[in-house]
Amino acid sequence: MDPGTGTRRVTIVDVAAHAQVSTTAVSKVMRNAYGVSPAMRERVNAAIAELGYRPRAAARGMRGRTYTIGVVLPDIRNPFFPEIVDGISGHVRDTEYQVMLGTGSRISLPGTSASDAEVELRLIDSMVDRGMDGMVLVAPAAGQKRVDEAAAGVPLVVIGRHMRSALHDTVVDDDARGAALVVNHLADLGHRRIAHIDQREPDHGRAATMPNAVRTRGYRDAMTAQGLAGQIDVVSTGYTEEGGYLGAKQLLAREVRPTAIFAGADIVAMGVLTAVAEAGLRVPEDISVAGYDNTSFAALGPIGLTSVDQAGQQIGADAARLLLERIARRDRPSTFITTSPTLVVRRTTAAPPG
Amino acid sequence: MDPGTGTRRVTIVDVAAHAQVSTTAVSKVMRNAYGVSPAMRERVNAAIAELGYRPRAAARGMRGRTYTIGVVLPDIRNPFFPEIVDGISGHVRDTEYQVMLGTGSRISLPGTSASDAEVELRLIDSMVDRGMDGMVLVAPAAGQKRVDEAAAGVPLVVIGRHMRSALHDTVVDDDARGAALVVNHLADLGHRRIAHIDQREPDHGRAATMPNAVRTRGYRDAMTAQGLAGQIDVVSTGYTEEGGYLGAKQLLAREVRPTAIFAGADIVAMGVLTAVAEAGLRVPEDISVAGYDNTSFAALGPIGLTSVDQAGQQIGADAARLLLERIARRDRPSTFITTSPTLVVRRTTAAPPG
Repeated sequence: MDPGTGTRRVTIVDVAAHAQVSTTAVSKVMRNAYGVSPAMRERVNAAIAELGYRPRAAARGMRGRTYTIGVVLPDIRNPFFPEIVDGISGHVRDTEYQVMLGTGSRISLPGTSASDAEVELRLIDSMVDRGMDGMVLVAPAAGQKRVDEAAAGVPLVVIGRHMRSALHDTVVDDDARGAALVVNHLADLGHRRIAHIDQREPDHGRAATMPNAVRTRGYRDAMTAQGLAGQIDVVSTGYTEEGGYLGAKQLLAREVRPTAIFAGADIVAMGVLTAVAEAGLRVPEDISVAGYDNTSFAALGPIGLTSVDQAGQQIGADAARLLLERIARRDRPSTFITTSPTLVVRRTTAAPPG
Repeated sequence: MDPGTGTRRVTIVDVAAHAQVSTTAVSKVMRNAYGVSPAMRERVNAAIAELGYRPRAAARGMRGRTYTIGVVLPDIRNPFFPEIVDGISGHVRDTEYQVMLGTGSRISLPGTSASDAEVELRLIDSMVDRGMDGMVLVAPAAGQKRVDEAAAGVPLVVIGRHMRSALHDTVVDDDARGAALVVNHLADLGHRRIAHIDQREPDHGRAATMPNAVRTRGYRDAMTAQGLAGQIDVVSTGYTEEGGYLGAKQLLAREVRPTAIFAGADIVAMGVLTAVAEAGLRVPEDISVAGYDNTSFAALGPIGLTSVDQAGQQIGADAARLLLERIARRDRPSTFITTSPTLVVRRTTAAPPG
């Protein structure tokens, strides 16, 4: 029943001999350690590939490493998350690390009403139990205290949530600035009734740090700065396609409906576009729509969605780099990286009607 | 550094006491064993949730189980794959199993030209090394011999690829029938020049079993049955958005261009729609477009893509059920399930111009 029937398993000694380097050099390349030249890396990786070398993760696990990074995503339907995963994967590509993904929504037990945060904490626990060397949490729902508890047990980087901690690193987009880019663009086009669809934030304690809440604050501040405080109109649903659909239905039923809808995420804008089409309205002639994340969906020919680009691949790559550094040295000082978003204007935004 | 500072870890004995059942019963529920009543399951799961019980996967791993299922996806950008993952996750939701995802494209080494199959085999190996109790391979690129070798080492279910083996179970969509549904629908509308965009299949040996190749054969057979053998026109790119874009560019540059394009997957149709929009053509007035998979993208208001529904969630649930059965009893006879696709007609298909 052994798949490697008859053939001796390739060892690190074989790889070193094939690459004509020391086993220490091979080990260094595999650990992505400092002081390895690109030429050395290439040579060792070529030998690993040619010989099909595959160290036993279980054996390594007993020595304390499994060379596995766990990435926890809120869901796998949001087309923004693959950008982050690509960035993480691209960064670890020439190391021996593997990326394993888990999504929070999949482990809720029936008959219980586990919150997002509970479901996610259980997933983090189970990934740690399964020997992940480090974790990347994308927009985690748990509070700082619980994230810190997790970070005390495993090297950890938070993406998207504006949390500062001595125990983990953080990479965020400047969400307030991204929201302001959208509001200013729409105001410049002549819009005044600019509505926003947001993710409902049940936990006021975390409102200051969740990306959705920071975007909403950015929207409110930018509207106020534009002299449009009286026009602020926020509908809170969820960062899902359905959330966008339901939010837009509410906005389109207003006595005086908005001339522009700023959806907090592209996946929300997807639902908005469906609701607008169902209402027999044209985009952008009757109503402008903008999203956030600049996903591949936004760039699609028949969509052409104006959206905020928060450079997901770069965010993922930065997070992976910080995580590998933290795995190598647990007590390193924590780093907080903020990336600057840009606005990509396409066909869904134009001057308001009439 | 222990996150559970001060509090004693909850054990199976606590869960049994809380639920007022035996520890054997708790164990049975966790293993998803036969002979557990729904009421018992609910009671035990409620106790697990209330107490926050979390067995140590590592400890369990030493006894031979990690309660982890590895799912290998060709990529995470194709919006069809979340349907399958939802089906798998939904089925294991009331068991103790966790689902971990890996995608093949992410582990290719730079400076090497690893094929899809090699990259994927390395990922399978690494997931087995990390102690997965079972694996689900979605449309694997590797040959039957290599998949059988993997199946000899770990309980395994193949989704999407038409492989029959005594060593693993298989769940496929009737791809030939799905392709015929599209061709017949377009022919009924009056189309004759119906082109197909396919995934390039470099390995002739596996052409009989890859879902893309089965769809292409179904297209050819249905065209022939409709008396349209002379109109058969296949462009082979890839099951990606870019593949659809490049394929459509080729088709639109034909001296006599097709009046309908059948894209082998919805993600391919996304690229087709962009290329058609760029060419200044209207869908469906100038050209009809159909996809395959009936993803959430197809149902979007501004898209309204006619597509084949292959019931991804059901496929995922079937695969999970077979896998848990195979984990429980390694030598059980293998099962081959074929699901019947249906056509969902929306706004992108209509009678040809003129």
